Amino acid sequence: MATEHIVSSYNDELVALAQAIAEMGGQVEVAIENGTKSLLKLDRELADVTIIADQRIDDMQRRIDDMAVSMIARRQPMASDLRAIVTAIHVASDLERVGDMAKQLARRSLKLEGMTLQPTFYNGVKNMTALVLRQIKDALDAYSNRDAAAAIEVCNRDDEVDAMHTSLFRELLTYMMEDPRNITACTHLLFCAKSLERIGDHATNIAERAYYLQTGKQLTSDDQDLLRTQIKI
Amino acid sequence: MATEHIVSSYNDELVALAQAIAEMGGQVEVAIENGTKSLLKLDRELADVTIIADQRIDDMQRRIDDMAVSMIARRQPMASDLRAIVTAIHVASDLERVGDMAKQLARRSLKLEGMTLQPTFYNGVKNMTALVLRQIKDALDAYSNRDAAAAIEVCNRDDEVDAMHTSLFRELLTYMMEDPRNITACTHLLFCAKSLERIGDHATNIAERAYYLQTGKQLTSDDQDLLRTQIKI
Repeated sequence: MATEHIVSSYNDELVALAQAIAEMGGQVEVAIENGTKSLLKLDRELADVTIIADQRIDDMQRRIDDMAVSMIARRQPMASDLRAIVTAIHVASDLERVGDMAKQLARRSLKLEGMTLQPTFYNGVKNMTALVLRQIKDALDAYSNRDAAAAIEVCNRDDEVDAMHTSLFRELLTYMMEDPRNITACTHLLFCAKSLERIGDHATNIAERAYYLQTGKQLTSDDQDLLRTQIKI
Repeated sequence: MATEHIVSSYNDELVALAQAIAEMGGQVEVAIENGTKSLLKLDRELADVTIIADQRIDDMQRRIDDMAVSMIARRQPMASDLRAIVTAIHVASDLERVGDMAKQLARRSLKLEGMTLQPTFYNGVKNMTALVLRQIKDALDAYSNRDAAAAIEVCNRDDEVDAMHTSLFRELLTYMMEDPRNITACTHLLFCAKSLERIGDHATNIAERAYYLQTGKQLTSDDQDLLRTQIKI
């Protein structure tokens, strides 16, 4: 009976860890949405909400880290359980950085206050946000469903994010050249685009971790190229 | 005797893990130096060296990750050993990202080829590189010497990096406004400055991990503010 009790409570801990990651993921998704909205509407209140939320996200990472280390120490997990716990540490670290990016979007919105921004400047940022939000959601789904195929799809789709970033970069540069008064605002938007591109990179990292969790193998860029070729063929 | 053998080989593994981190740290420092040099001299060959080195750095991270997970599985470490192993995972992850930043500096140098750059544009980048290189070195030293006080110093010095970044940002913006022909080149330099600032952030992360390794406590920003106040008083 004692063993059963231990096993059951160990499972509870593994479930609690997965739930903590899911909760953190949810908060990070909201932070990306709020960060971008604060930028598009120059909404100071929403920017403040996003900046404060980042502290909560940081705390969640510390809590997940502590949970994981304590589980490893007490439960001495083997094989797939150990993989799950180490993956949780990595995913929480990526989510924490995505929270930072959302905070940076919010901070840029505060810097843009009072500047004249033509609505067209924002189109690319809007489209990129939609794409990286989908990437984060899909990566977290691949992680929680332990779906290696879905994880590979997220990794492959990162090229789209990069292409969109490059095109937005060029577009913003032309606005700056057309009229020097656009330089400061467009420079801030360039950095917002970069933050979104990095959120895309973190989505890829999470997807790579999901792949590792399911297969026990690390996904290298060679593997990805190979898989991409296979999918194309 | 059997126990002694196990203990001794366990220690060997812990030493090997610390050495792997030190080796990775060394490679990352070289990558920052090469990445920046390739930028300042628009040296295509050095840029290529840095870009290729990043693959090696990525491989080192995977190897450290595998070593750590395998040690946890086989050795079932407790307390401070477990902390050392988990910290190694985190530090390797930060170093891998610093390698990415160095690669990005090298890539920017390829984009700047053929553009007219006044030497003054570079001064700020040069100074920032010197500062963040010192931050990475000091953070790695604090980590390998398990020196919590040195770790706090690195964290506090991050304000200097941020201040330098802000001033460089403004300076580059003025060059862009003075002459629209500077816009493209200076935009690339803005991103280089951002990469350097992020290297500084990773140095802080490593220092925070060094603090955790030594004290068993996570260093929050509140703690840092408190410590900073104490030092000032």
